[in-house]
Amino acid sequence: MNRIVTISREFGSGGRTIGKHLAEKLGIPCYDSELLDKIEEKSGLAKEYIAERGEYTPKGGWLATAFADRSLNGLSVQDYLWTVQRKLIIELAEESSCVIVGRCADYILQDQQDLLKVFIHADMPSRAKRIVELYGERDETPEKRLRDKDRRRSAYYHFYTDMEWGRTQNYHIALDSGVLGIDRCVDIIASLY
Amino acid sequence: MNRIVTISREFGSGGRTIGKHLAEKLGIPCYDSELLDKIEEKSGLAKEYIAERGEYTPKGGWLATAFADRSLNGLSVQDYLWTVQRKLIIELAEESSCVIVGRCADYILQDQQDLLKVFIHADMPSRAKRIVELYGERDETPEKRLRDKDRRRSAYYHFYTDMEWGRTQNYHIALDSGVLGIDRCVDIIASLY
Repeated sequence: MNRIVTISREFGSGGRTIGKHLAEKLGIPCYDSELLDKIEEKSGLAKEYIAERGEYTPKGGWLATAFADRSLNGLSVQDYLWTVQRKLIIELAEESSCVIVGRCADYILQDQQDLLKVFIHADMPSRAKRIVELYGERDETPEKRLRDKDRRRSAYYHFYTDMEWGRTQNYHIALDSGVLGIDRCVDIIASLY
Repeated sequence: MNRIVTISREFGSGGRTIGKHLAEKLGIPCYDSELLDKIEEKSGLAKEYIAERGEYTPKGGWLATAFADRSLNGLSVQDYLWTVQRKLIIELAEESSCVIVGRCADYILQDQQDLLKVFIHADMPSRAKRIVELYGERDETPEKRLRDKDRRRSAYYHFYTDMEWGRTQNYHIALDSGVLGIDRCVDIIASLY
């Protein structure tokens, strides 16, 4: 049976980097941006839309877009994206052992026998420093950007899974990458695999 | 500077056992039941009261006991116990490196430089099995006992710390002892020390 590691992470916590390094160390694929390409291919939706709306609630909240969201065979575009994403994640997990970053994979694959569910978080200052290094300055403060991303990611997770995002009990291991550091997080997760 | 490991845990998750084994492995003291003895000595309160009321809200809720709770120099007995407990935990942390289980030590020592904050949890079935082995059967089902303990421990924590008990972001590492097993949890925490 395939062994899957799902990595849920706070924006700016380095969860994506941890996923990449972990996958290299274990010699298995890591699906993150690769997932975007595959979803784009399957769904026919623009990658920007997928990146933004495949993990976050719309900026104005659901209601603001409920009507704007054009309907495809009875589904809103958002729901259509969810179903494509969900199906693809299940296929990838059946294909081979792998690391999957974000996109509610922990929930989607929870009936998978051999699943290691990881959550990565970090203190505000470390995350602020990180996103400015990675994505540069914006008009909004990094803290404001982080709070907004967290709020929308958490709302998205709750909407589709009816579970609380970042709740200790939903993960086998949760790590503070700000204090422990990226490499140590990778080593610990690898030792559990 | 002393290095302190605080272990917060769900009832029946084996957090106490993990603390004991970890302390042995690191060759430092573990304060758990030892803490009860010291608090009894300092406070003059009965150990049963300390065990029950030093970590849990009263069964009937705060209000039920607010008036019954006799007042000592302006403090309720509950608050008096909190101040004694708090002072003792700070003294022990200044004395030597150690492992402290429960009693909001993570919050009380949060300004300590070298603090490793751990949370241990487990799925309901593992915890139910564990408490029946450790404490035997009761009239109430193990699940009912666990839900009650969790609720009252969480309420106590929130009352005195104004923080959310078991929230991922409050700990450096959170582990599912039901899936990972006691020994593996000990090894991981020791490797971080």
